[in-house]
Amino acid sequence: MQTSETVVAELHRMLRADQVLTDAASLDAYAHDDAEWAPYERPLAVVLAEHEDDVSAVVRLAAASDVHIVPRGAGTGLSGGANAMARSIVLSLERMTRIVEVNVAERYVVAEAGVINDTLREAVAAHGLWYPPDPASYRISTIGGNVATNAGGICCVKYGVTRDYVLGLRVVLADGDVVDLGRRTAKGVTGYDLTALMVGSEGTLGIVTRVTLQLLPIGGREERAIVGSFGALREAGVAVAEITAAGIVPAALELIDRTCVEAVDAWQSLGLPHGVDTMLLAKVDEVGAVGDALAASVARIMADAGAVGVERAADAAEIDRLFLARRLAYPALERLGPVLTEDICVPRGAVPEMLSRIQATAAAHDVVIANIAHAGDGNLHPLIIAPEGDDAAKARAKLAFDRIVDDCRELGGTVTGEHGVGLLKLPGAAEELGPRVIALHAAIKHALDPLGTLNPGKAFPA
Amino acid sequence: MQTSETVVAELHRMLRADQVLTDAASLDAYAHDDAEWAPYERPLAVVLAEHEDDVSAVVRLAAASDVHIVPRGAGTGLSGGANAMARSIVLSLERMTRIVEVNVAERYVVAEAGVINDTLREAVAAHGLWYPPDPASYRISTIGGNVATNAGGICCVKYGVTRDYVLGLRVVLADGDVVDLGRRTAKGVTGYDLTALMVGSEGTLGIVTRVTLQLLPIGGREERAIVGSFGALREAGVAVAEITAAGIVPAALELIDRTCVEAVDAWQSLGLPHGVDTMLLAKVDEVGAVGDALAASVARIMADAGAVGVERAADAAEIDRLFLARRLAYPALERLGPVLTEDICVPRGAVPEMLSRIQATAAAHDVVIANIAHAGDGNLHPLIIAPEGDDAAKARAKLAFDRIVDDCRELGGTVTGEHGVGLLKLPGAAEELGPRVIALHAAIKHALDPLGTLNPGKAFPA
Repeated sequence: MQTSETVVAELHRMLRADQVLTDAASLDAYAHDDAEWAPYERPLAVVLAEHEDDVSAVVRLAAASDVHIVPRGAGTGLSGGANAMARSIVLSLERMTRIVEVNVAERYVVAEAGVINDTLREAVAAHGLWYPPDPASYRISTIGGNVATNAGGICCVKYGVTRDYVLGLRVVLADGDVVDLGRRTAKGVTGYDLTALMVGSEGTLGIVTRVTLQLLPIGGREERAIVGSFGALREAGVAVAEITAAGIVPAALELIDRTCVEAVDAWQSLGLPHGVDTMLLAKVDEVGAVGDALAASVARIMADAGAVGVERAADAAEIDRLFLARRLAYPALERLGPVLTEDICVPRGAVPEMLSRIQATAAAHDVVIANIAHAGDGNLHPLIIAPEGDDAAKARAKLAFDRIVDDCRELGGTVTGEHGVGLLKLPGAAEELGPRVIALHAAIKHALDPLGTLNPGKAFPA
Repeated sequence: MQTSETVVAELHRMLRADQVLTDAASLDAYAHDDAEWAPYERPLAVVLAEHEDDVSAVVRLAAASDVHIVPRGAGTGLSGGANAMARSIVLSLERMTRIVEVNVAERYVVAEAGVINDTLREAVAAHGLWYPPDPASYRISTIGGNVATNAGGICCVKYGVTRDYVLGLRVVLADGDVVDLGRRTAKGVTGYDLTALMVGSEGTLGIVTRVTLQLLPIGGREERAIVGSFGALREAGVAVAEITAAGIVPAALELIDRTCVEAVDAWQSLGLPHGVDTMLLAKVDEVGAVGDALAASVARIMADAGAVGVERAADAAEIDRLFLARRLAYPALERLGPVLTEDICVPRGAVPEMLSRIQATAAAHDVVIANIAHAGDGNLHPLIIAPEGDDAAKARAKLAFDRIVDDCRELGGTVTGEHGVGLLKLPGAAEELGPRVIALHAAIKHALDPLGTLNPGKAFPA
């Protein structure tokens, strides 16, 4: 085992000075992603890779030096997948921002891992193409990070998640070798689907340096928003179930609960009707009369379920206004204190039961829990808020977090819908996967990374 | 190593008499799938499993006896993935035909591997749900086989392939252990995507005994067919490119070439206009005025590209009539002699170039090659026909097959779009994947099946 000093000296030897950060402020800034609740340690160094050769060289050095690599995009992860560990190098791909190719005829884009989701969306939009996956972080998160966590978003209820758009990947393997996986054609079944295996593997099997993403035509959609205000959570739950039962696949179906509504209203008055408890925010995007009819159906279902108010909009500015409460929910809650973000996914029909259990958990553990939910997917984000510096509240928040995971499992859910296991969901994942499936994970990890160089201890429980 | 007699005796001891076939006729019938051109040998026995416990017991016996397991659905594969080898047991899942659950609220179905694709489609249709993937074999192939090969079909140009619908799998591993992979919720990212790794792995990593498939609402679609007849292949190629460029995602976009058209017309007169060389068969399925407008656009693009005739239909019987030539193409060609089916996938824009290279290859090797193409995906099925008993023609057909694979690679294509590597595409896959990616396959295979019990030698080149 080489000393830490030797490893850092070697990094300096092989890269430019501005690519290797070792000052305390940088080491602390890169020590964790947005999951500060998960454990982390100060890394030996932060490397800002600019080319896959940099990635490859650093991985080879780490493998030879018994040092760990923690790959990182923008650090917006919410499960601790990019949290640093002892004797680790944080390998950031944020400078790999080249859009290599936009192919209009074949409808794909090739981009380096550090390209921001929104930058990629704009680049392809200029060619009449659309990249749907829209995690809440899309303005700041990288496409490589989206791939590493298989990020979801609001429109995935209709348009699918990151994985559904990944055609191919360039990956630096644990021995530093660079491989191209997947394809650029519309279909292909040559060999195992190693591309899908890499998506969501949180940098534990390889480091994604370049992605090839399938795109849709940007046209052929006309967005309409339908927003219902409900006096009771269970009424909104009924509306969600009825929309699904009617065979409607909305382009968005979001729910925010009373705690969110109140936090938003207290911050920036929304002029909501009195007694509003829950808001259900839907979009449909079919064109013309079909879209009109679907929007009318969604509005009617909301009203029949007991909505005290239903608003509709078809132009972009009005849609933005109606969705304002959804956009403001997270920042409004962050004003109340540090937020521990849950990410369970239950069967759609279990959303009302799960939400009422969460309310009970909040009461039992004396913590504030607000709910933002991708209701159409059954993907709930209970946000547990502990006042700054209140260690007792923080301890209660962690108990509530575990309780929510248990309830989710009891209702047939999965412990992470779109944020990834990282470190935060290791105990829940252990329950969900069971020992035999965990052993499969370990066997694959060992087959691809026998020295345990790449982000060890993340993505699946030991 | 146990003797073959001991292994067969043990099978008879652990299963009912009618579950173990050892007569010569059965052994020959189950010795290969629909890829008779690929090598095969007579198996030791055929086992008709009725429960995953049967599968598990037979796998354990095989592992302990140094015998190979060749899993099999309906045997409709076209690459030899289910071809038997020396010292093998063909393990058929055709009797595992239970539809375990249709969940309307969550829109999924759980079915055993032996359920026929069409049976599953009808079962879920009765609940207002739709399972899109429609391989040509959908009336006779099993859903387990579809999963093992990641089967495509006609509608996947718009609706995706088998993989896009698989939420979870029950799998018997190489040591006989049974695991549940994946989930039943709409989203989920807990651990590696082992479900996707299993899909398309041709029974080399585990034996799929049960599948959980995501479904769509059956409603909300109105099919319209638009069929263009062209005097020249390149004109049809232009139409395909223009349809894509217009941002239209058709629900089907099939092409049949002159050899197909002539074979069909010679068999059952289609009353086609004189001089028709190529037919392009499209469907759109948007509702109402939007669908009408799209159908009109497709028809106009075909006419502008030089179609000598464009027919349109909106009712089911008329659509069937217009698609008749597509349905008859394969049987019409089989009348001319044994068919060696290719399955290349090239970039959409390369379809005309690839088709003209195939014509040149047919001339150069003096073989008849007809083309059926999922043109909207760039997925071509050149059908190479060698007269029965003509060994010289068969040898020339094999040379043509290899030439087509080389041309496909040169144009940026993949050697198998939807049929799988099996045995037939091992050389092409070796070229496409390269040694480092093949080594990844071998490492994963070894990690999950260290004794090489499950269908060794298939799916990827050694």
